[in-house]
Parts: sequence; C-alpha cells; structure tokens
Amino acid sequence: DSDASAGQQKSAACAACHGAQGKAKVELYPNLAGQHAPYLAQALRAYKKGDRSGGQAEVMKAFVAGLSEQDIDDLAAFYGSQQP
Amino acid sequence: DSDASAGQQKSAACAACHGAQGKAKVELYPNLAGQHAPYLAQALRAYKKGDRSGGQAEVMKAFVAGLSEQDIDDLAAFYGSQQP
Repeated sequence: DSDASAGQQKSAACAACHGAQGKAKVELYPNLAGQHAPYLAQALRAYKKGDRSGGQAEVMKAFVAGLSEQDIDDLAAFYGSQQP
Repeated sequence: DSDASAGQQKSAACAACHGAQGKAKVELYPNLAGQHAPYLAQALRAYKKGDRSGGQAEVMKAFVAGLSEQDIDDLAAFYGSQQP
C-alpha cells in the first residue's frame, strides 16, 4: 500500500512547481496539499498514459513517465497528507 | 473582475460533486477549496474548449458549456476563497 514518507523522498521534482509541501507558488499550477490521494493518483496515471491533456500536461507526462505504480501511490499519499 | 459571492450563487451544480464548500465527498473528484483561482479558471476554460481530457472531462464539459467568462471567474474566485 502507499507510503507518504517514501512519497516525500520521491517528490523533489514535483516540488519545483508544486512546492515541497504542495503549495504551488505559481497560481496557474495547482496546490496539491490536502487533495484527495485517489484523485492525485488517478491524475498521475492519466498523465502517464497520455489520457489527460490541458494545462501543463506535456510537462507532467515527462515527469511521470519514469514513475512506478508504487511511486504514484506514494506521491499521492504524501501530497494528500500535507496540510492545505 | 471576479466576485466570489456571485460565484457561490452559481455553484449549485458544482456542489453536487465538489461539495458546497469545495470538499468533494467522492475521493476521485478533486477538492476545490483553497485551490488557486487562476488554476481553477484555466481548468474550466480548458474543459469548455475541449482542451482538457482525463477523469470526468466529458461531464465537466457539459456543466461548463453554459458558463460565461464572468461565471468562470466568479466560480473560481468562490472555490478558491473557501477554507481547505
């Protein structure tokens, strides 16, 4: 099952846009802190499969390409557990 | 410019899935409370133009079809202003 602390270890690349605690400094990028983990995982999988477009989808697809299923669940758990 | 209270008046349809205060009961639907208003407005415009796929994009496109530019900004301001 998902591991939020493992997710934190894997979140360096995400933090560049979404913030280390999931608060995006750029207002066109979504905050992730406190978002539903199942929604976040679904979004990451959709980016990985190329099923999600809009906004920075191409950038996201590149970031997500190398993530495993476990990575996706851990990252979703981490950001979902952050205080919004 | 955007008007959060006008946005609240227009949010009945959104509340069905996203909650009256922007906390989605269904965890596959995103929370909107405290999300960046520019990100929310961008997402609504992308759904309206058919530029955003993934998740419930088709459902969102139907809901957004009738929204004006002002409606979009007001709704984004309303949900963005909610306490996450």
